[in-house]
Amino acid sequence: MSGEMLGSLYNQNGYSTARMRNIWSDQNRVKVICQVETAVAYAMAKNGKIPDKAYQEIQAKLVPENIDRVQLKIESARAGHFLAGFVTVCQSLFDDDSGQYIHYGAASEDVEDTAFVLQLKESDRVLKDYLDQLGSVLYDLCERYKSTVTAAVAHKTYASPTTLGFKLGIVLNELDYLMRKLDSLAPFTFAGSLAGADGTSSMLGDDYDQIEQDFCDRLGLSKPEMYWHTQRERFTEYCHVETMIAQALGRLGKNLLYMSQTIVGEFQETYAPGRQGSTVVPTVRNPYMVEAVVNLATVIRNEMGLMYDTMSVDGEKDTTVWRDLYVALPEMTMYLSGQLNYAINILKFGQFNAQRMRQNLSADDGTMYSGSLMMALAKHMGRENAHRLLVKLRDQADREHATLRDLFYADPTIAKYLSSDDLDTLMRPDGHLNNAISKTEQILKLYMHCGLSS
Amino acid sequence: MSGEMLGSLYNQNGYSTARMRNIWSDQNRVKVICQVETAVAYAMAKNGKIPDKAYQEIQAKLVPENIDRVQLKIESARAGHFLAGFVTVCQSLFDDDSGQYIHYGAASEDVEDTAFVLQLKESDRVLKDYLDQLGSVLYDLCERYKSTVTAAVAHKTYASPTTLGFKLGIVLNELDYLMRKLDSLAPFTFAGSLAGADGTSSMLGDDYDQIEQDFCDRLGLSKPEMYWHTQRERFTEYCHVETMIAQALGRLGKNLLYMSQTIVGEFQETYAPGRQGSTVVPTVRNPYMVEAVVNLATVIRNEMGLMYDTMSVDGEKDTTVWRDLYVALPEMTMYLSGQLNYAINILKFGQFNAQRMRQNLSADDGTMYSGSLMMALAKHMGRENAHRLLVKLRDQADREHATLRDLFYADPTIAKYLSSDDLDTLMRPDGHLNNAISKTEQILKLYMHCGLSS
Amino acid sequence: MSGEMLGSLYNQNGYSTARMRNIWSDQNRVKVICQVETAVAYAMAKNGKIPDKAYQEIQAKLVPENIDRVQLKIESARAGHFLAGFVTVCQSLFDDDSGQYIHYGAASEDVEDTAFVLQLKESDRVLKDYLDQLGSVLYDLCERYKSTVTAAVAHKTYASPTTLGFKLGIVLNELDYLMRKLDSLAPFTFAGSLAGADGTSSMLGDDYDQIEQDFCDRLGLSKPEMYWHTQRERFTEYCHVETMIAQALGRLGKNLLYMSQTIVGEFQETYAPGRQGSTVVPTVRNPYMVEAVVNLATVIRNEMGLMYDTMSVDGEKDTTVWRDLYVALPEMTMYLSGQLNYAINILKFGQFNAQRMRQNLSADDGTMYSGSLMMALAKHMGRENAHRLLVKLRDQADREHATLRDLFYADPTIAKYLSSDDLDTLMRPDGHLNNAISKTEQILKLYMHCGLSS
Amino acid sequence: MSGEMLGSLYNQNGYSTARMRNIWSDQNRVKVICQVETAVAYAMAKNGKIPDKAYQEIQAKLVPENIDRVQLKIESARAGHFLAGFVTVCQSLFDDDSGQYIHYGAASEDVEDTAFVLQLKESDRVLKDYLDQLGSVLYDLCERYKSTVTAAVAHKTYASPTTLGFKLGIVLNELDYLMRKLDSLAPFTFAGSLAGADGTSSMLGDDYDQIEQDFCDRLGLSKPEMYWHTQRERFTEYCHVETMIAQALGRLGKNLLYMSQTIVGEFQETYAPGRQGSTVVPTVRNPYMVEAVVNLATVIRNEMGLMYDTMSVDGEKDTTVWRDLYVALPEMTMYLSGQLNYAINILKFGQFNAQRMRQNLSADDGTMYSGSLMMALAKHMGRENAHRLLVKLRDQADREHATLRDLFYADPTIAKYLSSDDLDTLMRPDGHLNNAISKTEQILKLYMHCGLSS
Repeated sequence: MSGEMLGSLYNQNGYSTARMRNIWSDQNRVKVICQVETAVAYAMAKNGKIPDKAYQEIQAKLVPENIDRVQLKIESARAGHFLAGFVTVCQSLFDDDSGQYIHYGAASEDVEDTAFVLQLKESDRVLKDYLDQLGSVLYDLCERYKSTVTAAVAHKTYASPTTLGFKLGIVLNELDYLMRKLDSLAPFTFAGSLAGADGTSSMLGDDYDQIEQDFCDRLGLSKPEMYWHTQRERFTEYCHVETMIAQALGRLGKNLLYMSQTIVGEFQETYAPGRQGSTVVPTVRNPYMVEAVVNLATVIRNEMGLMYDTMSVDGEKDTTVWRDLYVALPEMTMYLSGQLNYAINILKFGQFNAQRMRQNLSADDGTMYSGSLMMALAKHMGRENAHRLLVKLRDQADREHATLRDLFYADPTIAKYLSSDDLDTLMRPDGHLNNAISKTEQILKLYMHCGLSS
Repeated sequence: MSGEMLGSLYNQNGYSTARMRNIWSDQNRVKVICQVETAVAYAMAKNGKIPDKAYQEIQAKLVPENIDRVQLKIESARAGHFLAGFVTVCQSLFDDDSGQYIHYGAASEDVEDTAFVLQLKESDRVLKDYLDQLGSVLYDLCERYKSTVTAAVAHKTYASPTTLGFKLGIVLNELDYLMRKLDSLAPFTFAGSLAGADGTSSMLGDDYDQIEQDFCDRLGLSKPEMYWHTQRERFTEYCHVETMIAQALGRLGKNLLYMSQTIVGEFQETYAPGRQGSTVVPTVRNPYMVEAVVNLATVIRNEMGLMYDTMSVDGEKDTTVWRDLYVALPEMTMYLSGQLNYAINILKFGQFNAQRMRQNLSADDGTMYSGSLMMALAKHMGRENAHRLLVKLRDQADREHATLRDLFYADPTIAKYLSSDDLDTLMRPDGHLNNAISKTEQILKLYMHCGLSS
Repeated sequence: MSGEMLGSLYNQNGYSTARMRNIWSDQNRVKVICQVETAVAYAMAKNGKIPDKAYQEIQAKLVPENIDRVQLKIESARAGHFLAGFVTVCQSLFDDDSGQYIHYGAASEDVEDTAFVLQLKESDRVLKDYLDQLGSVLYDLCERYKSTVTAAVAHKTYASPTTLGFKLGIVLNELDYLMRKLDSLAPFTFAGSLAGADGTSSMLGDDYDQIEQDFCDRLGLSKPEMYWHTQRERFTEYCHVETMIAQALGRLGKNLLYMSQTIVGEFQETYAPGRQGSTVVPTVRNPYMVEAVVNLATVIRNEMGLMYDTMSVDGEKDTTVWRDLYVALPEMTMYLSGQLNYAINILKFGQFNAQRMRQNLSADDGTMYSGSLMMALAKHMGRENAHRLLVKLRDQADREHATLRDLFYADPTIAKYLSSDDLDTLMRPDGHLNNAISKTEQILKLYMHCGLSS
Repeated sequence: MSGEMLGSLYNQNGYSTARMRNIWSDQNRVKVICQVETAVAYAMAKNGKIPDKAYQEIQAKLVPENIDRVQLKIESARAGHFLAGFVTVCQSLFDDDSGQYIHYGAASEDVEDTAFVLQLKESDRVLKDYLDQLGSVLYDLCERYKSTVTAAVAHKTYASPTTLGFKLGIVLNELDYLMRKLDSLAPFTFAGSLAGADGTSSMLGDDYDQIEQDFCDRLGLSKPEMYWHTQRERFTEYCHVETMIAQALGRLGKNLLYMSQTIVGEFQETYAPGRQGSTVVPTVRNPYMVEAVVNLATVIRNEMGLMYDTMSVDGEKDTTVWRDLYVALPEMTMYLSGQLNYAINILKFGQFNAQRMRQNLSADDGTMYSGSLMMALAKHMGRENAHRLLVKLRDQADREHATLRDLFYADPTIAKYLSSDDLDTLMRPDGHLNNAISKTEQILKLYMHCGLSS
């Protein structure tokens, strides 16, 4: 087993899922290459470019089971070119001249690009499944915690009361957008390519359009508007959306990490029997999976540099940048599978502690109500004047080591406009949650709607 | 003047255009901040939250002309917070209490985000104008050079004959896609924000939706589906498209650089009177502007790391990543203006040398026709057999230091299927250009269509 | 004023210091260019290549005061080449032919590279001054808080008791290493260049070594081992150390942010009179400066991509990557000045709350002593057995919603080896701090030693 | 087999070498983990912390042969922690209580970090072997082509005559610097770690220094100055030098790619029998390996973002950034092995075409001598005047479609100072090579010296 994280027996599940790795495996690569070469033969035969018999035989024999991986490795290495090695190896499967019609009319870039598209399309189904699962879990949590009070945190400090449901809802709404985005890319990204090394489809003759159409139809792909081997938007766009999903999950992870702190204690990722947190701190419950979600956001976005670089093709083919795609496309998609898998499990099995959230509000000295207080005073004395008054009280609290809350009650200007009861009402979280709740409901409604239409 | 390239008097025009820099200038920033604060007052007054008179007075007085930049700098520095400084400075413009209604109901993140959106929308107009200009120039060049023969270059080596028009057409078609992409983002990206520090719009009360709608309407922006201060897709998506445009231009630049080589001589960027290439090689004509286009692709994509980082917000506000946006958004947009400006001028005033393109084909030893030769032979002897024969001839040519072209004519197997005249026809560029020409026409038609519908 | 953060009147101090910006300003650039061109004339005259009188006159007249920036901008723009414009503008300062000897024997890359080195050397002095200040503040804090108990935090959870002095000490020790690193780079990085466009020094004749030596001596720079216009290690190495410093500060920032949380309250950055935290949460004390330190770590390291790209020079001069340096070198150095300035001020004027640190330990359920408990039990029952026992108790605590601490006291196996008094001793922080204190002392000693030798 | 390039049977040799992959394999990882845990036992026993008999038994049994990888995978997955799983699995190897002394006194971060250091040290030996081989080949090529004339290329255009030996020499000299750099890092980077989870070495007691010394001695590593689990310079510095090596190779690759162009024909990478260039252009000889060298420079530098991110540790342990190291360290080192392997083979077996280099100079119109011409005229008419004259002639040449070379001979001002014979001498490459040759000799001498001292 290899030493990079995606290849290591001991580590790969910490960075990806087996289900996704299978799609990008050597085995599946050979399989989609066979499918693509068969589709080439199909389209060529359908348009009278090669004998139908040759296509029939290619279809029958060009299956992964017939291809010896060691021989393929040897021939590819000898040729210094995977496709050349592949075509060579395949010749031996044919007694007569049908083997001559393999790769007839195709360039290796057509086959390789289309094969990547097929793998990406398979990945897309898996990603969407994961995203659906995550969406479901989030949806349920939003509903459950719709009214659960907690602190909005700005710059690591308490800003105002809000609800856990709304916090999670904003993540759900973001994923919602990104899922729709992924949907919208599909017809563009999942296109085949049969245009030759220079894009002129010269090996196909005049009826190149029809042949490419048949080729794409056969593979369940859309026909591209134009030759795209030097236009890499198809892959870059997709990876960009993957990267945004990763950052949205990273945001979720950061927020859960905040809640997982010993002193906060608002969230605890699950520890199945046998799971351990540390060899030296035996009883600890570290949020490893949450940390992994945050980390993978960084790892994934770091690969985008390669996806942009892969666009700046020099001439009609340019391996100095094409190889970027080979590195980044499988890795990004695999990493994202691992990150989604963690996110789903964290939310599904982890525990939110609503009681602790409410208790923790007591760490506030009054600041988290100072916004509402300002607005209440603003009606009487002006917003800016109210702001200045409260800033002044804050300075006083610091100077005198007093509690801000007490100063609010003691201040004569405030007292002029607000009674002690008014202040009591203002300085309790529960009166401030209406909008958070109604916005959460709106998010859930939007998500439902989207789910129905898709 | 500052020392970073965008700020340096001597360098900034090599990295941006004045037209774009103006949009992101301090002066214009203050102007859009005034517009946003005025729109807050407008929406609040319209919904009965503040007196209409206050809005009227704010509208009248909150104009950049009234704001002293030195005082603003001092107050912002003192407050350690730009918006706080701004609000303070503005108070002095009002005799009565109307000043109290500035920033009434808004959080600084609302104002800052919306102001960035307004600036980005202005930039968008400029970018589209540049893109239109570039599209026009490219369109004309594609038409002019539709049939001009040149070599398709794969891995820096000649692959087959193609046309200059088709090469440029692929770039045009790519820009076409990206321009449509930019269009499609507009309604999403150009949205306002009025949701408060925690996103609950608590300062607006129950009718927050209507107030945000009025606020956005006033500014010519769309109303967002949901609070988005922690959902940064609006900016990241836009910058992603900018980055893809930059890479497409980088690709164009790489291809022009290839043509600009002394030994290739197929393109020469223009040298206006007085322009110099070097202090030590006095007569040189360096393709500086083309190099700048390639460089800016790198510089721009390098900023995307920040745009992805800015998405992983911790809590409701998180300056550790918000500041990424402050750095990257203005810079990326300015750099792109410089790159587009160069690209337009390079294509508009540079010279393609069609004669040289044809002459340079003679550097080919026969290889660029070996694909067509293979397909011609394939009909008679099978594709794979033909491929092997040609590879064998190539090995022989290397071994014997012979010209491949001669070996093609001398080979008995080839002679069995193809006459010397057949070979003459095959080994001339002109017979291979039909598809390149028809695809170029298709590109032009697609582009026209797009132009009409927009 | 420009809109990029380093150029904006309202923002530049949040990203850099005026002292550093001055070094990279257009004004100073012209000044160092004058110095370099004068040094060229000096070395050429000293070696008999140009008349001594010409050098004398160049020395007298080539001063920034004589150079009109508008004229320089116009001529540079016309020439499309800064140095060419500069040389043209300078001609007008001379009545006779001495002006002809400006730039005599130098290539523009020599002048530009050497000028960057001079600016970087000036920056180096400023950075070292900032680093010394930061080292001093950290040194004092380590001493003051040498024995102040606080929690070591692993994976956001309490791991064991340690001291604040040790935590800060590790940062000091890291900066110590990085300062020595910076010192060690100086002789390599601060070298001049006088080798011509192709590196062969052909314009200098045979005695190129002596001329380059005199040139470098005059500027207080070292003579390079070899022509280095295409070997960019000098700049990349320096920026790499800058980036590591930025990450070390980022680490410090993250740790201070942790302490600045409302619910932690162990650190509070200072609020000078008039400073405000928010327009909507009037009384908040946000750790903006700490957040800026964390952010700038990201912004700075993001530029390193350009510094590596600038190394892959194609041919003898390649503006597609040279321009990377123009962008990144000034910006990285300026950003680092801002980050260091914040770090110094945060530590100098911020307040650590030792009392709160001790109180916060009570959030621990016993876990932070489980490591010591395991080792105490290990002597009697084996390490692995002790680990398993404690894991079992943790599982039990979770299941029964019991406090781990109580279970420790109640467990019969533990009781077999440790009395209640033993447990009392183990479960108090103060007995665990010896090594933290002695290591802090070691760090302080190492730092002193370094200070003395430099 | 996996789908990421380093794990794919068909691709991994195009991105790395088996020799290097072995070092980072799961198998070797388990081996070094065994070595580290044995060294912990050794140092603990030597200092009386555990029975000597336990160490003896651990040494005997803790070998990779005894560890079942499937069981290890299962236990690691169950524990959710590789080291915890490892310690559990190892218990079964011991009948008595010696197994209890495995991992006694160590934290998992100690073991993991030290194991990475051991693997990196093994890699270092391999890298240095590759670098030596590359240095040797380059050295020989510099000698062989010391006087071989070719064009210095600035901005893709001919600048002046130089030699191939000098061009390659600059690369040799750069690698020379980087090899010395790698040497200088060794004592710092190759250090062990035994300091516990919080860095206080609390599990070792007072004599932690001696125990860590013995631990490091046993492994052939140096003892670190200070606890470094949160100071990641050791790894980041090393990877930085790897990245610079990769960029230097990328530069070499770019220059070879330039020479490999069909129209240039100055370099041809070798095609062993059976190797093929393309499936659609059968006779082409693409410089795939050179392109791979250029690509890997990008791939490698792209990982540095993670190595910088890994430095910003929050608290005493922070998997959100620690995992960056897990991803980047093995990958960077493996990629570099592949890049070096390609570079060695390209230079060893590829062919430079000196005759073509000379012929290609004829593409020059006189420009590559315009610098020398300017300096020759400068003596008579002043440098700036000479420059202006030549610029004027260039403008004339463009206007009249004349050859610059002819204008030089025809110009009356030039004729005043230089005879036709003078011009003949100036406009031949051979008179300009002295310095290039002497500098190449200097590079070879410096390299020899370095070789001897190491």
